[in-house]
Amino acid sequence: MHTNRIDHIGIAVKDAKEKLRLYKDFLGLEVTEVEELPERGLRVYFIKVGDTRIELLEPMSENSEVSGFLEKKGEGIHHIAFNVHGIDEAVALAKAHGLQPLSEEPKPGAGGTKVLFLHPKTTGGVLIELVEGEH
Amino acid sequence: MHTNRIDHIGIAVKDAKEKLRLYKDFLGLEVTEVEELPERGLRVYFIKVGDTRIELLEPMSENSEVSGFLEKKGEGIHHIAFNVHGIDEAVALAKAHGLQPLSEEPKPGAGGTKVLFLHPKTTGGVLIELVEGEH
Repeated sequence: MHTNRIDHIGIAVKDAKEKLRLYKDFLGLEVTEVEELPERGLRVYFIKVGDTRIELLEPMSENSEVSGFLEKKGEGIHHIAFNVHGIDEAVALAKAHGLQPLSEEPKPGAGGTKVLFLHPKTTGGVLIELVEGEH
Repeated sequence: MHTNRIDHIGIAVKDAKEKLRLYKDFLGLEVTEVEELPERGLRVYFIKVGDTRIELLEPMSENSEVSGFLEKKGEGIHHIAFNVHGIDEAVALAKAHGLQPLSEEPKPGAGGTKVLFLHPKTTGGVLIELVEGEH
């Protein structure tokens, strides 16, 4: 398996619009896509920078995928997603390298992608997402 | 001010070599540079991915720049560095946008760069580094 770029960096926020002062007004970046993912309780804002993106993860409900993180750790960097080919082989390969996948198989991600997360306890404290397919 | 790419993502680690199982063996990435920064108590490993880099920050001493972070939060993502032009204007501009610089002026960074950090309390919990110049 080989990654050729970082697909995105996920940042948990309470209020995404408030963060645009930093990313848009100060750093001069643009929001290229806003997507609502009700099944995950999230509204996500993608901000393009070079060949990667910042993904602001804003909760739409109290039991969203980032609500526990926000409550425990507060706002901040949530995960790094690497673009990969061959994600179907990733589970076995991850285990062979002592990395623990968070699911037995890749799951559907945004925009027809397949995604797989690796447990931070096995990756040096970094929640890593693998993404196959262009979003 | 405008950034056109993420210069690097800094990740605090206790033992960088141990992490190469993840970044090199599993993700297929290469370490392109190892640098010792004794004045900051750090050994840094740069890993190229797309147009950006992962920077593993490993302490060389007990009072390194990441020792407090490692003790308090454990291993994990430490900061995001954005490549910028016009860093000398950044202090005033940051303040005008309600962002608090961690120093009154940019400081010398690795490889002849100029760097400035912004306080995470004013950036949504993300320690942001601005880097002017190619490393």
